[in-house]
Amino acid sequence: MTIVNDAAIVAELTELYMKYEDALCNNNLEVMDELFWQAPEVVRFGLAENLYGSDEIRAFRASRPTHNIKREIYNLKVVTFDSNSASVTLEFRRVMDGVERQGRQSQMWYKFDFGWKVVSAHVSLLPI
Amino acid sequence: MTIVNDAAIVAELTELYMKYEDALCNNNLEVMDELFWQAPEVVRFGLAENLYGSDEIRAFRASRPTHNIKREIYNLKVVTFDSNSASVTLEFRRVMDGVERQGRQSQMWYKFDFGWKVVSAHVSLLPI
Repeated sequence: MTIVNDAAIVAELTELYMKYEDALCNNNLEVMDELFWQAPEVVRFGLAENLYGSDEIRAFRASRPTHNIKREIYNLKVVTFDSNSASVTLEFRRVMDGVERQGRQSQMWYKFDFGWKVVSAHVSLLPI
Repeated sequence: MTIVNDAAIVAELTELYMKYEDALCNNNLEVMDELFWQAPEVVRFGLAENLYGSDEIRAFRASRPTHNIKREIYNLKVVTFDSNSASVTLEFRRVMDGVERQGRQSQMWYKFDFGWKVVSAHVSLLPI
């Protein structure tokens, strides 16, 4: 039977996720690369772009003009399945072009031999 | 070592996904319910709403005014991990209020004793 939300695994993923959040907000490309799966099959749907494969994701991050992202996150939900899969979702508020917007982010994590990695991610804004 | 994209599992998930797509477009609530995990931990970020738990998802679907969704999907990517986890992503075009919009959808599927279920989903539009 599937074990949902084993406390130790939830704690591990929550810590990993906060490492990602910090890297994102401070544009730490190395840590973001380390936490994302390095493979052609990884997908990242960003606010305004659809990226396929780690090369496209890395190139986008290296070139984006916004180097430091200020956002407030809330409703962070880490849901783990057995000891190898997890869903991490959250909502955020962020001022963009002078307007406070609300957004959502979802990530699927999978544990490989080489550790937990984000294998799919999706970020979007709610309509104003 | 993790087996990514075992052909039989990809075929199984692709068939399940197409069953979901058909149910979504034809507003078949029963099939959508059957394919989503029935649990408080399931998350669905829709075009304009953030839903937590299967009760909220079911209530939203039962009450939404758009009963038949016409959309064209492309770039469907099914990525499976071992025999219990999968990411399903796609892009779509859909006319909304007379305007053709482009969107993205991502789902995380997990295989429980009772079968494959969507445990997290996110749908959004690209900005115009």
